[in-house]
Amino acid sequence: MAQVCVLSGGVGGARFVRGLVDVIGAAHVVVVGNVGDDDEFFGLHVSPDLDSLVYALAGVHDEQRGWGRRRETWNALDTARALGDDETWFQLGDRDLGLHLVRTKALRAGEPLSAVTARIAAALGVDVRLLPATDHRLRTIVRTAAGELSLQEWFVRRRARDRVEGLRFEGAAFAKPAPGVIEAIGGASAVLIAPSNPCISIWPILAVRAIQAAVRRARPVVAVSPLIGGKAVKGPAERMLRSLAGGTAPIHVAGCYDGLLDGLVLDEADASGAKAVERLGIRPTVTRTLMRDRRAARRLAEAVLEAARA
Amino acid sequence: MAQVCVLSGGVGGARFVRGLVDVIGAAHVVVVGNVGDDDEFFGLHVSPDLDSLVYALAGVHDEQRGWGRRRETWNALDTARALGDDETWFQLGDRDLGLHLVRTKALRAGEPLSAVTARIAAALGVDVRLLPATDHRLRTIVRTAAGELSLQEWFVRRRARDRVEGLRFEGAAFAKPAPGVIEAIGGASAVLIAPSNPCISIWPILAVRAIQAAVRRARPVVAVSPLIGGKAVKGPAERMLRSLAGGTAPIHVAGCYDGLLDGLVLDEADASGAKAVERLGIRPTVTRTLMRDRRAARRLAEAVLEAARA
Repeated sequence: MAQVCVLSGGVGGARFVRGLVDVIGAAHVVVVGNVGDDDEFFGLHVSPDLDSLVYALAGVHDEQRGWGRRRETWNALDTARALGDDETWFQLGDRDLGLHLVRTKALRAGEPLSAVTARIAAALGVDVRLLPATDHRLRTIVRTAAGELSLQEWFVRRRARDRVEGLRFEGAAFAKPAPGVIEAIGGASAVLIAPSNPCISIWPILAVRAIQAAVRRARPVVAVSPLIGGKAVKGPAERMLRSLAGGTAPIHVAGCYDGLLDGLVLDEADASGAKAVERLGIRPTVTRTLMRDRRAARRLAEAVLEAARA
Repeated sequence: MAQVCVLSGGVGGARFVRGLVDVIGAAHVVVVGNVGDDDEFFGLHVSPDLDSLVYALAGVHDEQRGWGRRRETWNALDTARALGDDETWFQLGDRDLGLHLVRTKALRAGEPLSAVTARIAAALGVDVRLLPATDHRLRTIVRTAAGELSLQEWFVRRRARDRVEGLRFEGAAFAKPAPGVIEAIGGASAVLIAPSNPCISIWPILAVRAIQAAVRRARPVVAVSPLIGGKAVKGPAERMLRSLAGGTAPIHVAGCYDGLLDGLVLDEADASGAKAVERLGIRPTVTRTLMRDRRAARRLAEAVLEAARA
């Protein structure tokens, strides 16, 4: 089997990628990860989605908490808080911090994000190729009544309470795909879009023009809906799609990837929306999409691969 | 009682300062701390001596280990090491790191070291006034057969194995005393030099010309020898004095502070060297100087205050 290329956000995408790797093996998967929610805290470059992918693929993620590392401690941030610092709303665990220190140093020394990501992944024993969408600066900016917010400000600091009026992807016009991304998409036997939040996890990837063009040329492109019964398993996808895509039915998810999809995998709970998707010329696949455990992720991966073959 | 001003290095000095505070109260002590061993790791500004002082005065230091914080964890640095980073020879604990993050951010935002040090000390409940010698960049550089090394490279990375041929204090010619330092020295009822390593803890302070001039004008100036029986309690003072001051007798310690001292407090084990000190016009005080515990530190502080009154 040739390689598949997965466009992915953080936690949910990481679960899906792990399932995929279980089914077809690490050598047959290339992941293009979102960097739109990257940010700086205490001057350290944080790449939440890439890190969720690395931690999950290395098996050092915290399954319960849903993000970050297992056996994590919080002594550095607790100290910063005790010293009166107000930048402590973004949770940085001590182990996590170690990675940010290494990456930030590398970036300051001029090493591209793609190179340091590969180094970090390899050091943690990850054998899946993981590429950031771009080595350039690309930031998801959330437009709200409270003004423009960085994604983390909106999501973490203000707990996603501000209604999202729009998004823009700062730097996207200048961002070039990271080395290997276009080749991975172009050479893939299928391009899969992980069950991540379309707006803040996948749009920033597609905001890189050359990536979008490459996905447009690729066949088949199959997305997995992150919604189950029109609701998000976790995170703000539901309200966001309502606001930015007109609703949370499969057709709205498909609409997020306008003109790109050959197939959409959706949950049994959304089966009634399959027909509308089909009318768009997109082949719907109805299955169970909740990745309760690794076995469920594997099953979903199999269904998605099957959909891509069809 | 008016204020005393103490020139101090890290751990040993911090013990002495704590004893002093126990005797005369925090309001009567101003500490001028060495910054010559400051350095950057992972782009973070580390001030080992100021931090030893803050931790000891806040009572959060690790008494057993002798440096750093109590109940410390090492997860960030362990992670950096696991990721193959080679800058992990300088031990940065997670709690310690929290302080470095806060300080580095403040320095980058333009806050002077003296201001951020005061903020940090206050946040940790330290009520002694603690001033860095200077807000400017001042670095102790160690000349060895292996070339010039930063103090931490020489001391920590290479474990002080290279013979010290000389020291220079980079930036000293441009460094101005931090706000309050000259006033603290000039207004003190006594200037005390803590039992720190003269060459690498006190010389960098005195390398700031205006500080040296102020100490030269001050009366009385009483130093405490860090050596006991010509040997260092801890650290490289013995070999360093042999190399840079011609020996480890009280007269050599006095020689480190040439022309500045009115009194020198030395250990009973070095009593035979008292006469030679006296011949220099410096009043020797012989007492027990080992600060085995807080009570011993208090006793030493009392003896030093007594010597300053004489």
